[in-house]
Amino acid sequence: MRLADLPTPSLVLDRARLKRNIARMHESARRLGVGLRPHLKTAKCVEVAREVHGGGTGPITVSTLAEARFFAQAGFEDILYAVAIPPSKLDRAAGIQRAAPGLKILTDDVDGARAIVERGKSLGVRFSALVEVETGGGRAGVEPESPEFAAILDILGPAGMFAGVMAHAGHSYACDSIAAIEEVAEAERAGVVKAAGIASARGHFPATVSVGSTPTALYARHLTGVNEMRPGNFVFFDLFQHGLGMCAADDLAVGVLASVIGHSRTRNHILLDAGALALSKDTGANRRIEQVGYGLVRAPDAALPREDLAVLDVHQEHGILSARHGLDAMEPLPFGDWPVGRRIFVLPNHVCMTAAMYDRYYVVDGSDEIIAVWNRVGGW
Amino acid sequence: MRLADLPTPSLVLDRARLKRNIARMHESARRLGVGLRPHLKTAKCVEVAREVHGGGTGPITVSTLAEARFFAQAGFEDILYAVAIPPSKLDRAAGIQRAAPGLKILTDDVDGARAIVERGKSLGVRFSALVEVETGGGRAGVEPESPEFAAILDILGPAGMFAGVMAHAGHSYACDSIAAIEEVAEAERAGVVKAAGIASARGHFPATVSVGSTPTALYARHLTGVNEMRPGNFVFFDLFQHGLGMCAADDLAVGVLASVIGHSRTRNHILLDAGALALSKDTGANRRIEQVGYGLVRAPDAALPREDLAVLDVHQEHGILSARHGLDAMEPLPFGDWPVGRRIFVLPNHVCMTAAMYDRYYVVDGSDEIIAVWNRVGGW
Repeated sequence: MRLADLPTPSLVLDRARLKRNIARMHESARRLGVGLRPHLKTAKCVEVAREVHGGGTGPITVSTLAEARFFAQAGFEDILYAVAIPPSKLDRAAGIQRAAPGLKILTDDVDGARAIVERGKSLGVRFSALVEVETGGGRAGVEPESPEFAAILDILGPAGMFAGVMAHAGHSYACDSIAAIEEVAEAERAGVVKAAGIASARGHFPATVSVGSTPTALYARHLTGVNEMRPGNFVFFDLFQHGLGMCAADDLAVGVLASVIGHSRTRNHILLDAGALALSKDTGANRRIEQVGYGLVRAPDAALPREDLAVLDVHQEHGILSARHGLDAMEPLPFGDWPVGRRIFVLPNHVCMTAAMYDRYYVVDGSDEIIAVWNRVGGW
Repeated sequence: MRLADLPTPSLVLDRARLKRNIARMHESARRLGVGLRPHLKTAKCVEVAREVHGGGTGPITVSTLAEARFFAQAGFEDILYAVAIPPSKLDRAAGIQRAAPGLKILTDDVDGARAIVERGKSLGVRFSALVEVETGGGRAGVEPESPEFAAILDILGPAGMFAGVMAHAGHSYACDSIAAIEEVAEAERAGVVKAAGIASARGHFPATVSVGSTPTALYARHLTGVNEMRPGNFVFFDLFQHGLGMCAADDLAVGVLASVIGHSRTRNHILLDAGALALSKDTGANRRIEQVGYGLVRAPDAALPREDLAVLDVHQEHGILSARHGLDAMEPLPFGDWPVGRRIFVLPNHVCMTAAMYDRYYVVDGSDEIIAVWNRVGGW
């Protein structure tokens, strides 16, 4: 099977680029002297997780219990479910822990911690819980020096359910320079190390001290006191990461293969069969790259995206490919080069959102031949 | 099973509201004297399609071949695939047509029309193709008075593959008043009727003359010369449609059931387990309703959303519920009323996008009891 045989829209993964991106992150982890626990919220794919772990299994991070179960069934045993768990999800977590004894759950709440201990005892399961600490991201997490952190430790610790501390520096995505990312990475590191110290001083040993986002994992100056990092997006990268300076344009490993389905000569645009559902409505990359719209396009046999065109609007199943800045908007597009049926890759703004719409990757490796089909897990 | 037993996030459909919304659209179709061919791109659900057709089957519209196959397998025979078809999809369409003899496909392109006829002849299938005409929406469609429209007719007609004309007034969503929607509806009607007249005058009888969007289907003054309409969103409605004045806040039939998973007292927000994937990143409703963010919330036992809170930010699996205008942002949220584990509905901005992330509806009917589980079709 070749690219020309695929239905459109389809999600296509370039294995050569994937391997290159993974090698680069391993190099960063080696430089920083920490383990790599990739966040599979981006890939949601067993084969990608295995690529990161040299063909086998290893520690991973997930964002849903559906992912946790999926990877547990594939033989992954050390799984961190890195979203704070409400009481209603504890029974499912206990079930997954039977297949994956190294399952770790997360809390940042006193009542949440109490529910973990009580439900664990009543189910006869010793949960391993990490405590999320706030290091400037402003989303979730408890302040290391707060009474709530101490209270959570004193609930989890005596029950033997305290497994460590973690932070996520999501605000690294708002940085405007590598120097600013270095600062955020240091705040993430310092915050989680401070939390680990407070826990140790209270007699609760933090086996896991975990940080991570793709930018901070690539640009931390050092990670003294930390033992693992959890980047996720790096396996594929996307236009947002490219705009942030995290990767080159030819590092993007995933594209949406789309077909031309029409033209509007009066409006000077080309219609693709990849719209809001096929690409997602994430427009974050426009903060970094002018007029990137819902994605740039590249020809299947080209390494780099075109500079002159972008998917500037989407409807549910229509993508509208138009001239970007560089091209005079009044100059007619070369419609003759874009007949109905022509195929093109749309490079995603935010690949975590785009990939979520698909149940599989069609894998290529430097040519137009499909060398494998890799399944993704969806839902919750 | 009750709401309290569902995993979160889950998609919950209120059947009483669904039935009321459907009854209202039937009343509009009766007033306008046209048939109702509901667009199932929103619901993607056999049971919803049957509710529209009084428990049986009837004409429907779909946005993907995956939907066409799904509904054909469920016994629907008259299916309009209302996105222009590229040549590579014709073989799949022919396969679906065997189960659904009334399948209709769409084109607005001379080469596209030629491919339909040639591939149909070589497969021994007589395709039924509608021609999409442009009536001001600015997305797809050929101008009724253009030489291209005549050329397409003269390709499809002699092959017995011309089935009619359709238009979609997507720009009704940009209107600022009911009067403006009435104008757009009239332009949609007049354009497609003009196209039907041109086709008839060339000797090609348009069996189907089709218009539709939820706003124009509700507010057209008359639809003389048209024989069907294709609204889709009306079955559920959403905050965008509410902001546009198409429905009351208690007409919204679908909500995302979410759990509180944490608090940030320093940032004054509540964290939900419904984020960018569970809600979508569509922010269109903010053009209509100030600070609606990614959705308003309502208690499971309340009819109306709260005015004081909205999901003002999302990460992949986190929704951040914060104070809207109206409430002094410095005043602390009532965290005691929002313990970890509390459940709440998030009302979607754009339900077509939100629902696309789920594989099923949990159906309620005026209480917290789950009376049915209805499957959705995804993908392409």
